[in-house]
Amino acid sequence: MTRVHVWGAAGYAAGEAMRLIDTHPALELGALESRSHAGAPVAEHLPALRRSAYRFSGEGSVLAAVSPGDVVLCAAAHGEARERVQAFMKRGARVVDLSADFRFDDDVPYGLAEWNAPAIARATLVANPGCYPTATLLALLPLASLGEPVQMVVDAKSGITGAGRTPSVGALFAEVAHDVRAYGLDGHRHQPEIERILAMHATHAPLTFTPHVVPLARGMLVDAYAIYARELEVQDVRACFARAYATSPFVRVVEGMAPSVAAVVGTNDAELRIDVFGRVVRVLCAIDNLGKGAAGQAVQNVNVMLGLPEQMGLGVATRVA
Amino acid sequence: MTRVHVWGAAGYAAGEAMRLIDTHPALELGALESRSHAGAPVAEHLPALRRSAYRFSGEGSVLAAVSPGDVVLCAAAHGEARERVQAFMKRGARVVDLSADFRFDDDVPYGLAEWNAPAIARATLVANPGCYPTATLLALLPLASLGEPVQMVVDAKSGITGAGRTPSVGALFAEVAHDVRAYGLDGHRHQPEIERILAMHATHAPLTFTPHVVPLARGMLVDAYAIYARELEVQDVRACFARAYATSPFVRVVEGMAPSVAAVVGTNDAELRIDVFGRVVRVLCAIDNLGKGAAGQAVQNVNVMLGLPEQMGLGVATRVA
Amino acid sequence: MTRVHVWGAAGYAAGEAMRLIDTHPALELGALESRSHAGAPVAEHLPALRRSAYRFSGEGSVLAAVSPGDVVLCAAAHGEARERVQAFMKRGARVVDLSADFRFDDDVPYGLAEWNAPAIARATLVANPGCYPTATLLALLPLASLGEPVQMVVDAKSGITGAGRTPSVGALFAEVAHDVRAYGLDGHRHQPEIERILAMHATHAPLTFTPHVVPLARGMLVDAYAIYARELEVQDVRACFARAYATSPFVRVVEGMAPSVAAVVGTNDAELRIDVFGRVVRVLCAIDNLGKGAAGQAVQNVNVMLGLPEQMGLGVATRVA
Amino acid sequence: MTRVHVWGAAGYAAGEAMRLIDTHPALELGALESRSHAGAPVAEHLPALRRSAYRFSGEGSVLAAVSPGDVVLCAAAHGEARERVQAFMKRGARVVDLSADFRFDDDVPYGLAEWNAPAIARATLVANPGCYPTATLLALLPLASLGEPVQMVVDAKSGITGAGRTPSVGALFAEVAHDVRAYGLDGHRHQPEIERILAMHATHAPLTFTPHVVPLARGMLVDAYAIYARELEVQDVRACFARAYATSPFVRVVEGMAPSVAAVVGTNDAELRIDVFGRVVRVLCAIDNLGKGAAGQAVQNVNVMLGLPEQMGLGVATRVA
Repeated sequence: MTRVHVWGAAGYAAGEAMRLIDTHPALELGALESRSHAGAPVAEHLPALRRSAYRFSGEGSVLAAVSPGDVVLCAAAHGEARERVQAFMKRGARVVDLSADFRFDDDVPYGLAEWNAPAIARATLVANPGCYPTATLLALLPLASLGEPVQMVVDAKSGITGAGRTPSVGALFAEVAHDVRAYGLDGHRHQPEIERILAMHATHAPLTFTPHVVPLARGMLVDAYAIYARELEVQDVRACFARAYATSPFVRVVEGMAPSVAAVVGTNDAELRIDVFGRVVRVLCAIDNLGKGAAGQAVQNVNVMLGLPEQMGLGVATRVA
Repeated sequence: MTRVHVWGAAGYAAGEAMRLIDTHPALELGALESRSHAGAPVAEHLPALRRSAYRFSGEGSVLAAVSPGDVVLCAAAHGEARERVQAFMKRGARVVDLSADFRFDDDVPYGLAEWNAPAIARATLVANPGCYPTATLLALLPLASLGEPVQMVVDAKSGITGAGRTPSVGALFAEVAHDVRAYGLDGHRHQPEIERILAMHATHAPLTFTPHVVPLARGMLVDAYAIYARELEVQDVRACFARAYATSPFVRVVEGMAPSVAAVVGTNDAELRIDVFGRVVRVLCAIDNLGKGAAGQAVQNVNVMLGLPEQMGLGVATRVA
Repeated sequence: MTRVHVWGAAGYAAGEAMRLIDTHPALELGALESRSHAGAPVAEHLPALRRSAYRFSGEGSVLAAVSPGDVVLCAAAHGEARERVQAFMKRGARVVDLSADFRFDDDVPYGLAEWNAPAIARATLVANPGCYPTATLLALLPLASLGEPVQMVVDAKSGITGAGRTPSVGALFAEVAHDVRAYGLDGHRHQPEIERILAMHATHAPLTFTPHVVPLARGMLVDAYAIYARELEVQDVRACFARAYATSPFVRVVEGMAPSVAAVVGTNDAELRIDVFGRVVRVLCAIDNLGKGAAGQAVQNVNVMLGLPEQMGLGVATRVA
Repeated sequence: MTRVHVWGAAGYAAGEAMRLIDTHPALELGALESRSHAGAPVAEHLPALRRSAYRFSGEGSVLAAVSPGDVVLCAAAHGEARERVQAFMKRGARVVDLSADFRFDDDVPYGLAEWNAPAIARATLVANPGCYPTATLLALLPLASLGEPVQMVVDAKSGITGAGRTPSVGALFAEVAHDVRAYGLDGHRHQPEIERILAMHATHAPLTFTPHVVPLARGMLVDAYAIYARELEVQDVRACFARAYATSPFVRVVEGMAPSVAAVVGTNDAELRIDVFGRVVRVLCAIDNLGKGAAGQAVQNVNVMLGLPEQMGLGVATRVA
């Protein structure tokens, strides 16, 4: 068993990661550091671990506990990770950082395993992608072989846990429950992250990205539209996706039905559907923003880094009747 | 037109009061004081006043603006009102205080107009009841003429706006949307308020009061059970309610259907239903916690204090086909 | 007072129309025909008319009641209106049909008053627009003066009342509450309606239209993207909207904040925001699918047909502080 | 592996049972009979089995498939099971019936394993309890040793899946999302079921039972109040519960916090809290109406009938840090 410590353990993504690791066959939870909740039972804070006896530990506890061969998941607020992560690595730990702090570092592999598994497997530090970039990149990266589009439009709908567990007026039930709210209309921090990775795959077309909050706790649907200068054939486009995700245990391309947020919440799955209308390719991608968009993907990255099967601890494939 | 200033204008109850006063035929909004939102347009903060040009004003603005004959609605946090209210009254204003600060003062009329209109009409300061006490007292006070029950049990379900607009983890969408949560299990501050008013109407039986948060922004349903030492007849009990509310424009007793939270949200109405099972009287009472439970009742009290028709500005009775 | 009969009175849009007409200063409700609910009190079925004494009437009741000068709102299922509407008109009634049945008739004015008021004012029959076309056309029609775009992409998010009140598995709480669901992925019946009206305003560019159901009872947000062959200046585009809606009492263009579904639900308002990103114009439009998208717009059309002020009975403008 | 066939496989409880059996170490799914969905892929109908290849089978398929040693879960509408269940048993199958059809048969063990495990272990047919009775009985049965109360009051709040998946207006999103709705106010079919089992444990005091629908898909909270003629000590009452559930893997009694619906949804757990106020004992009990209240309990009963560990396939106990 490899010990996994969690630094910044009181948020939604950290909680989901702890739920997954708690039942993972090859991982076990170590120190669960939270400045705000130090000493409190995890069971009172996290319904999914209600039966557990874990307690949050205080400032410095992960650093004190970490040993060579351990893993640290960093789930602190954006901007806090850089220094601490170096210290964890100096103690011999592998680190997956869920904040945005390392996503623009050329030396840190981007943790989208469907597209970057070899680099992740060799890494001691991985930058876990944001939820919007995860869904958007899974939808757009397979198109690279079709040539450059003229324009890309990404219209994303997310559950509110993407905003984290730190209280704010905009995340209150009474504000979210009766609204659909576009935000970041003058520019969203996830857009450069998406553009950077697209550029690494030779896609430089302009992107218009619009995120929305919908009345969901968890789940995300991205509608990605790529507009080309020429008409495309749907079978050619679908073939790109079939090739891209032929061996991926988590990406599922559906036809004849719509991708469903309800079908992916609680899982590490991404469900995609591809349609073509003349010069427009439309790709829908549903993920759980806390699953494939955060904690599930982090565990997937830990699996890859440790040489474990990619899907270990991330849901059993159902039997075929 | 009488000017109504709002002190503590950025919360949910204040916002609902401002919505009502904005279209009230005899009232107009004056200073809208909010320390946290001073200078901000109300339209950006309060969807229901999106078309308005009001702005929140800063600390001290109500005190500076108030003139003899004005009204002040105080909607600040519990514990802040006492000193300021005296200053408003010294300037010649009538005051309705929505906090709990004056609800236990023998010299301040309790603003449940269905039971206390004469005192309210003479008052310059009225203590607006809490939402739980409003629904509970409307359900239990008519029973006083039946003699003392052995025990009373009140099981209340409330929307989350009752917790106010100050951000807290417990009021986040992701915490509220999938839960039904009893709270105050060791004692809730509304219980003494209920018991005090019941005692003023000669009811001293012990009360067990359990509040719950349900996944609603607005609305409240109270199930009040009174257990007697003898069996009661349903027609006798219903007659008590018919007498108590014969002339009340806002209290509606229904039979053959259930009281509906959806039917009272946005109104100042209370919808009741009475059933009797042997020695148990069950009264259901649905109100809008921000309407009859807070802002609607405050406007009703202002109407009574100013000698206006009780229902003015609080919804037009529909025509009869 | 002009009498307004409602044919197909038990659905969501009919109910919202009845709520509006009930308090309209120049309209009164006549026969409220519903095959399924004949004889039932409206109060039990429609929370917003809980205080009313209206009853649903049976098959043929509107035809029996209609007199010259009356108005009939037809809110039956798509495909049922054609024959009956002729009979209503033969009796001298003006008709607003909320179904899709007349929206493709060249002889029947399309009831989008912001763009077609003169024809509506002269008409005895008006085809009330669908909710998706209403929001989409308000967003796209002002762009006509900019020349043809290369491509249009419309990504729409709607509350579930757009699916009507006839029970179906897909509209159950347990199916809607935890999902965001794209549908009509192989083609939606609203797309030709949108394309027809755009073509009448000289816009023939291809349109990709994707509707989604989000966990809302009411409300709709449309994100409309027009992609041009050249870069555009935001002030030029905003000027088109300022000109188009300068005198419209219901269309509100906002800057510096996002259009809010919560701010338009219960109203006949449309809230728009315009941004430009190089060759992409993005217009967001929020409406209430039952308000401006159905019943509110129907009452607006009745006002125009009767020569009444367009906003009568559709919400009072707030006073300016 | 024991094969489990499902008769009436398209409803919510059946779906949850199929999800559990799909990953159960000692059970496997057999025929999944649904008249309404015969031939359709389960994956399109049931998000939780999205990855599976199961298909619904047609009328008579379970009867054709069942072999000695198999298990049949009957999840058809109330009133349909009696004849078919006999046929399944004649073929040598054990049956757990989730309808109300056998709950009043003296010869059929009542499937509340915490109180009836020995009879269940010997049975070939078990009547699975209703969701309201499950939560209520878990809350009230431990009190039997305290003597008869004067009166019992049960106030229950349930998610809407308890109403099943057959479409009805009352279960539509737009009806449920903004309401708290008491129902069965003149008597609910679950009350006699509760009273029958209480009487078997020597409790005959009158019971007032009021069910409510709250805006939840899944989950239930029951507040059970027992009023006695004498005052009780909280430690005595809590001791009854400690004794009753000392060895139960699924019943968890909490102190210092509230039972949480969110903590039990998706599990077979029941979470209880006991308080005493003079002569009133208040017991809160949270369960998942589709878990411990239906499908989870059915699988628990299958485990007991087959001599398997009671908790097999029903969630792994978390490790202790």
